[in-house]
Amino acid sequence: MAELSITPAPPYYAAIFTSRRASDHEGYADMADRMMQLAHLQPGFLGVESVREGAIGITVSYWDSLEAIELWSRHVEHREAQRRGRQDWYEAYEIRVARVERARSFGRSEQ
Amino acid sequence: MAELSITPAPPYYAAIFTSRRASDHEGYADMADRMMQLAHLQPGFLGVESVREGAIGITVSYWDSLEAIELWSRHVEHREAQRRGRQDWYEAYEIRVARVERARSFGRSEQ
Repeated sequence: MAELSITPAPPYYAAIFTSRRASDHEGYADMADRMMQLAHLQPGFLGVESVREGAIGITVSYWDSLEAIELWSRHVEHREAQRRGRQDWYEAYEIRVARVERARSFGRSEQ
Repeated sequence: MAELSITPAPPYYAAIFTSRRASDHEGYADMADRMMQLAHLQPGFLGVESVREGAIGITVSYWDSLEAIELWSRHVEHREAQRRGRQDWYEAYEIRVARVERARSFGRSEQ
Protein backbone atom coordinates (compact mmCIF):
# COMPACT_ATOMS: atom_id res chain seq x y z
CA MET A 1 0.00 0.00 0.00
CA ALA A 2 2.76 2.46 0.87
CA GLU A 3 3.98 2.99 -2.68
CA LEU A 4 4.31 5.93 -5.03
CA SER A 5 1.40 6.63 -7.36
CA ILE A 6 1.68 6.86 -11.10
CA THR A 7 -0.55 9.73 -12.16
CA PRO A 8 -1.40 11.18 -15.57
CA ALA A 9 -0.07 14.48 -16.86
CA PRO A 10 -1.52 17.50 -15.02
CA PRO A 11 -3.94 19.03 -14.50
CA TYR A 12 -5.66 16.81 -11.96
CA TYR A 13 -6.57 17.21 -8.29
CA ALA A 14 -5.04 16.20 -4.99
CA ALA A 15 -6.72 15.82 -1.61
CA ILE A 16 -3.99 16.31 1.00
CA PHE A 17 -5.10 14.86 4.33
CA THR A 18 -2.75 15.50 7.24
CA SER A 19 -3.64 14.27 10.69
CA ARG A 20 -2.50 13.87 14.27
CA ARG A 21 -3.95 10.77 15.82
CA ALA A 22 -5.41 10.54 19.26
CA SER A 23 -4.42 7.74 21.64
CA ASP A 24 -7.56 5.69 20.86
CA HIS A 25 -6.71 3.48 17.86
CA GLU A 26 -9.47 0.92 18.26
CA GLY A 27 -10.95 0.13 14.87
CA TYR A 28 -8.65 2.60 13.14
CA ALA A 29 -6.60 0.16 11.05
CA ASP A 30 -9.68 -1.64 9.75
CA MET A 31 -11.29 1.64 8.83
CA ALA A 32 -8.15 2.86 7.08
CA ASP A 33 -7.92 -0.35 5.04
CA ARG A 34 -11.58 -0.18 4.14
CA MET A 35 -11.33 3.48 3.05
CA MET A 36 -8.36 2.60 0.82
CA GLN A 37 -10.34 -0.19 -0.81
CA LEU A 38 -13.38 2.03 -1.31
CA ALA A 39 -11.39 4.97 -2.68
CA HIS A 40 -9.93 2.74 -5.40
CA LEU A 41 -13.47 1.94 -6.56
CA GLN A 42 -14.59 5.56 -6.77
CA PRO A 43 -15.09 7.22 -10.16
CA GLY A 44 -12.26 9.58 -10.99
CA PHE A 45 -9.77 8.01 -8.55
CA LEU A 46 -6.18 8.20 -9.85
CA GLY A 47 -4.06 6.99 -6.94
CA VAL A 48 -3.17 7.42 -3.29
CA GLU A 49 0.00 7.75 -1.21
CA SER A 50 -0.16 7.35 2.53
CA VAL A 51 2.43 7.27 5.28
CA ARG A 52 2.34 7.57 9.05
CA GLU A 53 5.19 8.31 11.44
CA GLY A 54 4.10 8.15 15.04
CA ALA A 55 1.06 10.34 15.57
CA ILE A 56 1.40 12.26 12.32
CA GLY A 57 0.02 10.92 9.05
CA ILE A 58 -0.13 12.25 5.52
CA THR A 59 -2.41 10.74 2.90
CA VAL A 60 -2.53 12.29 -0.55
CA SER A 61 -5.16 10.99 -2.94
CA TYR A 62 -5.36 11.98 -6.59
CA TRP A 63 -8.54 12.55 -8.59
CA ASP A 64 -9.49 13.58 -12.09
CA SER A 65 -11.86 16.35 -11.00
CA LEU A 66 -13.17 18.33 -8.06
CA GLU A 67 -16.49 16.55 -8.52
CA ALA A 68 -14.80 13.19 -7.92
CA ILE A 69 -13.38 14.45 -4.62
CA GLU A 70 -16.76 15.86 -3.65
CA LEU A 71 -18.50 12.55 -4.39
CA TRP A 72 -15.92 10.62 -2.38
CA SER A 73 -16.24 12.99 0.56
CA ARG A 74 -19.99 12.31 0.58
CA HIS A 75 -19.78 8.51 0.25
CA VAL A 76 -21.91 7.09 3.04
CA GLU A 77 -19.22 4.80 4.52
CA HIS A 78 -16.64 7.55 4.21
CA ARG A 79 -18.98 9.91 6.05
CA GLU A 80 -19.26 7.44 8.90
CA ALA A 81 -15.44 7.08 8.98
CA GLN A 82 -15.14 10.87 9.15
CA ARG A 83 -17.57 10.97 12.06
CA ARG A 84 -15.68 8.23 13.95
CA GLY A 85 -12.43 10.00 13.14
CA ARG A 86 -13.56 13.23 14.76
CA GLN A 87 -15.08 11.40 17.70
CA ASP A 88 -12.33 8.90 18.45
CA TRP A 89 -9.27 8.67 16.25
CA TYR A 90 -7.98 12.14 15.47
CA GLU A 91 -6.86 14.97 17.67
CA ALA A 92 -6.58 17.22 14.65
CA TYR A 93 -6.57 17.07 10.90
CA GLU A 94 -6.58 19.26 7.84
CA ILE A 95 -7.89 18.49 4.37
CA ARG A 96 -6.59 20.59 1.52
CA VAL A 97 -7.99 20.26 -1.98
CA ALA A 98 -5.51 21.37 -4.61
CA ARG A 99 -5.18 21.49 -8.37
CA VAL A 100 -1.96 19.85 -9.51
CA GLU A 101 -0.46 22.09 -12.15
CA ARG A 102 3.00 20.60 -12.66
CA ALA A 103 4.63 17.29 -11.93
CA ARG A 104 8.15 16.00 -12.34
CA SER A 105 9.38 12.53 -11.58
CA PHE A 106 12.68 10.78 -11.12
CA GLY A 107 13.27 7.04 -11.21
CA ARG A 108 16.51 5.19 -11.54
CA SER A 109 16.94 2.94 -14.52
CA GLU A 110 17.71 -0.09 -12.34
CA GLN A 111 14.16 -0.12 -10.95
CA MET B 1 9.35 18.76 13.14
CA ALA B 2 6.65 16.22 12.39
CA GLU B 3 3.73 18.47 13.19
CA LEU B 4 0.73 19.83 11.32
CA SER B 5 1.13 23.20 9.63
CA ILE B 6 -1.12 26.16 10.22
CA THR B 7 -1.66 27.78 6.84
CA PRO B 8 -3.60 30.89 5.78
CA ALA B 9 -6.92 30.77 3.92
CA PRO B 10 -6.57 29.54 0.32
CA PRO B 11 -5.46 30.14 -2.31
CA TYR B 12 -1.81 29.24 -1.77
CA TYR B 13 0.49 26.59 -3.20
CA ALA B 14 1.69 23.17 -2.14
CA ALA B 15 4.77 21.27 -3.28
CA ILE B 16 4.03 17.58 -2.73
CA PHE B 17 7.25 15.59 -2.66
CA THR B 18 6.83 11.81 -2.49
CA SER B 19 9.87 9.57 -2.52
CA ARG B 20 11.15 6.05 -2.21
CA ARG B 21 14.57 5.97 -0.62
CA ALA B 22 17.47 3.88 -1.79
CA SER B 23 19.48 1.79 0.66
CA ASP B 24 22.29 4.39 0.89
CA HIS B 25 21.32 6.78 3.70
CA GLU B 26 24.73 8.30 4.37
CA GLY B 27 24.39 12.03 4.84
CA TYR B 28 20.65 11.91 4.26
CA ALA B 29 19.46 12.93 7.73
CA ASP B 30 21.81 15.91 7.89
CA MET B 31 20.70 17.06 4.46
CA ALA B 32 17.01 16.66 5.35
CA ASP B 33 17.49 18.73 8.52
CA ARG B 34 19.41 21.39 6.65
CA MET B 35 16.76 21.62 3.91
CA MET B 36 14.07 22.06 6.55
CA GLN B 37 16.03 24.90 8.16
CA LEU B 38 16.65 26.56 4.81
CA ALA B 39 13.07 26.22 3.61
CA HIS B 40 11.84 28.07 6.70
CA LEU B 41 14.05 31.02 5.75
CA GLN B 42 12.80 31.26 2.17
CA PRO B 43 10.52 34.12 1.11
CA GLY B 44 6.93 32.96 0.73
CA PHE B 45 7.36 29.85 2.91
CA LEU B 46 4.15 29.03 4.82
CA GLY B 47 4.85 25.66 6.43
CA VAL B 48 5.91 22.07 5.90
CA GLU B 49 4.67 18.63 6.91
CA SER B 50 6.93 15.63 6.50
CA VAL B 51 6.64 11.97 7.43
CA ARG B 52 8.49 8.82 6.48
CA GLU B 53 7.42 5.22 6.91
CA GLY B 54 10.09 2.80 5.85
CA ALA B 55 11.28 3.61 2.35
CA ILE B 56 8.35 5.86 1.48
CA GLY B 57 8.29 9.52 2.46
CA ILE B 58 5.87 12.37 1.88
CA THR B 59 6.85 15.99 2.43
CA VAL B 60 4.34 18.71 1.68
CA SER B 61 5.57 22.29 1.81
CA TYR B 62 3.29 25.30 1.51
CA TRP B 63 4.11 28.55 -0.27
CA ASP B 64 2.41 31.83 -1.01
CA SER B 65 3.12 31.76 -4.74
CA LEU B 66 4.50 29.68 -7.60
CA GLU B 67 7.43 32.07 -7.71
CA ALA B 68 8.37 31.20 -4.14
CA ILE B 69 8.45 27.49 -5.04
CA GLU B 70 10.49 28.25 -8.14
CA LEU B 71 13.02 30.26 -6.12
CA TRP B 72 13.33 27.52 -3.54
CA SER B 73 13.83 24.87 -6.20
CA ARG B 74 16.74 26.93 -7.55
CA HIS B 75 18.41 27.67 -4.19
CA VAL B 76 22.04 26.66 -4.57
CA GLU B 77 22.19 24.36 -1.54
CA HIS B 78 18.84 22.85 -2.45
CA ARG B 79 20.14 22.17 -5.96
CA GLU B 80 23.09 20.31 -4.52
CA ALA B 81 20.76 18.29 -2.26
CA GLN B 82 18.65 17.42 -5.31
CA ARG B 83 21.75 16.23 -7.17
CA ARG B 84 22.89 14.07 -4.23
CA GLY B 85 19.32 12.79 -3.90
CA ARG B 86 19.24 11.54 -7.47
CA GLN B 87 22.74 10.15 -7.23
CA ASP B 88 22.59 8.45 -3.85
CA TRP B 89 19.49 8.71 -1.69
CA TYR B 90 16.38 8.16 -3.80
CA GLU B 91 15.29 5.31 -5.99
CA ALA B 92 12.37 7.36 -7.20
CA TYR B 93 10.50 10.52 -6.42
CA GLU B 94 7.77 12.75 -7.72
CA ILE B 95 7.27 16.46 -7.15
CA ARG B 96 3.82 17.86 -7.74
CA VAL B 97 3.13 21.57 -7.58
CA ALA B 98 -0.50 22.31 -6.78
CA ARG B 99 -2.73 25.27 -6.07
CA VAL B 100 -4.65 24.79 -2.82
CA GLU B 101 -8.20 25.87 -3.47
CA ARG B 102 -10.02 24.71 -0.35
CA ALA B 103 -9.01 23.75 3.15
CA ARG B 104 -10.93 22.45 6.12
CA SER B 105 -9.52 21.69 9.52
CA PHE B 106 -10.61 19.85 12.62
CA GLY B 107 -9.10 20.17 16.06
CA ARG B 108 -10.44 19.06 19.39
CA SER B 109 -11.08 21.66 22.00
CA GLU B 110 -8.88 19.88 24.56
CA GLN B 111 -5.74 20.57 22.52
